[in-house]
Amino acid sequence: MQLTSETLERAIEALAKLPGIGRKSAQRVAMHLIKQSPEYVATLAGSLTDLKRLIKHCTICFNITDEDPCRICTNEKRDMSIICVVEETKDVYAIEKTNQYRGMYHVLGGVISPLDHVSPSDLRIRELIERVGKDDRIKEIILALNPDAEGEATSYYIQKLVQPFELKITRIAQGIPMGTELEFIDEATLGRALSGRSGF
Amino acid sequence: MQLTSETLERAIEALAKLPGIGRKSAQRVAMHLIKQSPEYVATLAGSLTDLKRLIKHCTICFNITDEDPCRICTNEKRDMSIICVVEETKDVYAIEKTNQYRGMYHVLGGVISPLDHVSPSDLRIRELIERVGKDDRIKEIILALNPDAEGEATSYYIQKLVQPFELKITRIAQGIPMGTELEFIDEATLGRALSGRSGF
Repeated sequence: MQLTSETLERAIEALAKLPGIGRKSAQRVAMHLIKQSPEYVATLAGSLTDLKRLIKHCTICFNITDEDPCRICTNEKRDMSIICVVEETKDVYAIEKTNQYRGMYHVLGGVISPLDHVSPSDLRIRELIERVGKDDRIKEIILALNPDAEGEATSYYIQKLVQPFELKITRIAQGIPMGTELEFIDEATLGRALSGRSGF
Repeated sequence: MQLTSETLERAIEALAKLPGIGRKSAQRVAMHLIKQSPEYVATLAGSLTDLKRLIKHCTICFNITDEDPCRICTNEKRDMSIICVVEETKDVYAIEKTNQYRGMYHVLGGVISPLDHVSPSDLRIRELIERVGKDDRIKEIILALNPDAEGEATSYYIQKLVQPFELKITRIAQGIPMGTELEFIDEATLGRALSGRSGF
């Protein structure tokens, strides 16, 4: 196959490296951009470089933000007594979308995973403990890590470290998701749903 | 939902406008880019703006190219006696991938479509006729437009205009695609396959 433009080939290669974008979609996107105005493409490219140029981490909760501290940490309407501990920024957005949580966050930046050479010191765990020690408004820590082996281990590790502060330590419920049928749920999930059953 | 970064929001919005990329994939791509090096993101952004900065159309075949005339038009190993007429650059690449065609191309830039206000003068049809008139090496025109109403109408229109030059005018075969079963083929395709049957 003889591509007639190396510029196009370079753009397709760069796009195809992005997560969830294969070579075919990359080609489609590149062809689409060739037909757009130079201003449109410049705006798109600028918004991508801005991701590295303008975004920093909040020095309180380590969520990504344009201004430090972030909008959640400086929002006085939010409940300063609860911190929800999550792995990544995307988990913050997932929880915000529920519109059910009005407390603060703490973004660890990952989970403990010896296989991937991620140890507790690579995460914002020390910062969480310092934060809990300094701020006596904090009454509850919610652990909202992913329900896999690494998430469980990290939850356990943090729970041990936070215990001395005599706070309420909770974790998000594990059970059957909405809109499914019991027969299609895996045994581990159904087991958790049973052991975590609650009264009416 | 309270996003903590307008920079992120802008990047997600720009990415979500691209074809085949929804808001969820756009968020995934933006989050991925935040974790990459500034150099990596700059290279990606640069390769996108280059699409508008460096790419032009070949003045012979109107395919996109970095140098004019394009690599296909200047490749002396290719067969100058055949021109394959296609709608878009992506069709050139699709045909090149078959490794079965060694002739030249002519990219129309679309098809005649009154509903979309595309008339013959918006396409490179005049340029095709001029090319055929000027270059007496050309012996065959292959019409390889998409098998829909607009493609058919455009093929017919071009065929009428090229007829006076006494060239061979052909069109790519319409029939059943490889690897399918007859019972799943629509009637129109099966009808074409029957009327276009060939001897062994």
